[in-house]
Amino acid sequence: MDRWVEETFHPHWRVRLAADEVLHEVKTDHQDLVIFKNRTWGTVLMLDGVCQLTTSDEFIYHEMMAHVPLMALDKPKQVLVVGGGDGGVLREVLKHPSVEKAMLCEIDREVIDTALKYYPEIPGNTFDDERSVVVIADGRKFVAETDERFDAIIVDSSEPIGPSAALHTPEFFAACKHALKDDGILVTQNGLPFLFPDQLRDTTHAFAGLFDHVAPYMCTQPCYFGGPFALNWASNEDDHLDITAKKLAKRQEKRGIETRYWTPAVHLAAFALPRYVETVVWQAIFDGRNDRAKNGRGKNKNDKKARA
Amino acid sequence: MDRWVEETFHPHWRVRLAADEVLHEVKTDHQDLVIFKNRTWGTVLMLDGVCQLTTSDEFIYHEMMAHVPLMALDKPKQVLVVGGGDGGVLREVLKHPSVEKAMLCEIDREVIDTALKYYPEIPGNTFDDERSVVVIADGRKFVAETDERFDAIIVDSSEPIGPSAALHTPEFFAACKHALKDDGILVTQNGLPFLFPDQLRDTTHAFAGLFDHVAPYMCTQPCYFGGPFALNWASNEDDHLDITAKKLAKRQEKRGIETRYWTPAVHLAAFALPRYVETVVWQAIFDGRNDRAKNGRGKNKNDKKARA
Repeated sequence: MDRWVEETFHPHWRVRLAADEVLHEVKTDHQDLVIFKNRTWGTVLMLDGVCQLTTSDEFIYHEMMAHVPLMALDKPKQVLVVGGGDGGVLREVLKHPSVEKAMLCEIDREVIDTALKYYPEIPGNTFDDERSVVVIADGRKFVAETDERFDAIIVDSSEPIGPSAALHTPEFFAACKHALKDDGILVTQNGLPFLFPDQLRDTTHAFAGLFDHVAPYMCTQPCYFGGPFALNWASNEDDHLDITAKKLAKRQEKRGIETRYWTPAVHLAAFALPRYVETVVWQAIFDGRNDRAKNGRGKNKNDKKARA
Repeated sequence: MDRWVEETFHPHWRVRLAADEVLHEVKTDHQDLVIFKNRTWGTVLMLDGVCQLTTSDEFIYHEMMAHVPLMALDKPKQVLVVGGGDGGVLREVLKHPSVEKAMLCEIDREVIDTALKYYPEIPGNTFDDERSVVVIADGRKFVAETDERFDAIIVDSSEPIGPSAALHTPEFFAACKHALKDDGILVTQNGLPFLFPDQLRDTTHAFAGLFDHVAPYMCTQPCYFGGPFALNWASNEDDHLDITAKKLAKRQEKRGIETRYWTPAVHLAAFALPRYVETVVWQAIFDGRNDRAKNGRGKNKNDKKARA
């Protein structure tokens, strides 16, 4: 008989998936991890009662995290992925031929080993690519201390609970800003705003206090049950957001990138926020701009000079 | 102790919602209906093991079914809603001041009575509006026989199983075409293409065999678990799809319509289909155009003449 693996983090509703075969299971005081096969979703990773990843729909989130910032850049060369040990974002990053170095900073080597063992189709050959550099370290510490400057930093963290919480703080985002080139782009994930608007609100607020441009965007990840999924974008360069579908299509063709979710039209459409999301975002940007005015914008300019 | 009400139509995964209070329940050989309160989702209607409606997110689907066609029209006057007995689409239709007659053709009066009794906030005063005309009839028959000609027909049906199946057939869509004004717009719902692409494929195929323009569009309805939700659009007039955000914003302001999901940007963005949906749609349009070529386009022109 099938075993059912249940999401437990929503108090008033539950999703459970049939486990045809359990591939791996760890149950300790610190972690509750189960990897199993499901006939609808493929291989599924459930961590601490939250569906984290399925092989049937991971392409959506990974494409939108990687291609939205990288297609907006003329020639992205240095890219940093924080978290994302499954290799899915890195796989998409490496599709851009201009990328010379794609660093992955993952706190836990086991996340990488688990992917290679149980869902190797996600990383594919990513970790063998000579442009890949894997660093096993605390992302917060690494970003604060690195001397490298990146064209894009993509934070592929899990929810802001436990060890991931540090990757959702204004202090971390400020360190990311410092580790970006002047025209660099920072991208994060902000959960499901229909159910949990706070995560999007807090990150947008922090971004607006640090960057000239804040632009949340969305995709729908079917296995993240409960509404559309928010990503967030911060940058200081106008052109990256003003890009046209024609230019994006040209870049896609020139770079020879095939996708299953991202298209030039989807790229632009993703920034059109439903009114109920816009309401959250506008207030957060207003609050963040106020913080920035109070703290003095000059401070940001000096930051830029200091690293020029 | 809470009772849990479960969706049963997905064989390999299940969603269950805590029922704090069961408001109404009918369990016969023909129908399994339960209406209950849930602390996350509000009042929930579960019909034959499928979550049909919750008061927390109904605005999304209802706004996108009504405002996408009606905002594209200069002065929509006659509108027909087929199905939709809960009154949600009709409520949004009536927000357009130019609408003179909003007909609702619902096969089952109990759907209306149930809404008025258990989730009256959805219809609101809709059925008291003097522009509302409710017809209790089989939608297929009504559309085939009516002498009225509509600016928009909105088919708010449930899944293509049971009595709703007739509302997903090429014969019904042909009857709708006949009941539309020359520049009218037909809108339907096409389920969750990530899990069930066939419904979107079949409707798109049928539309492409009948109409000059077919344009599936999407929204994410949080309580329809399993990915983004497809709607579909058919029309014979170019301008309705070429509309700009500026024009939409002007119309929204002039009509004084407040929304919680729809915005001019969301309207346009909804037509940007993820690549995995585009693949389904393009093939279906190709097949439908082939059918139309085989059957002779002249037949459609004659249809128009016959009713002119």
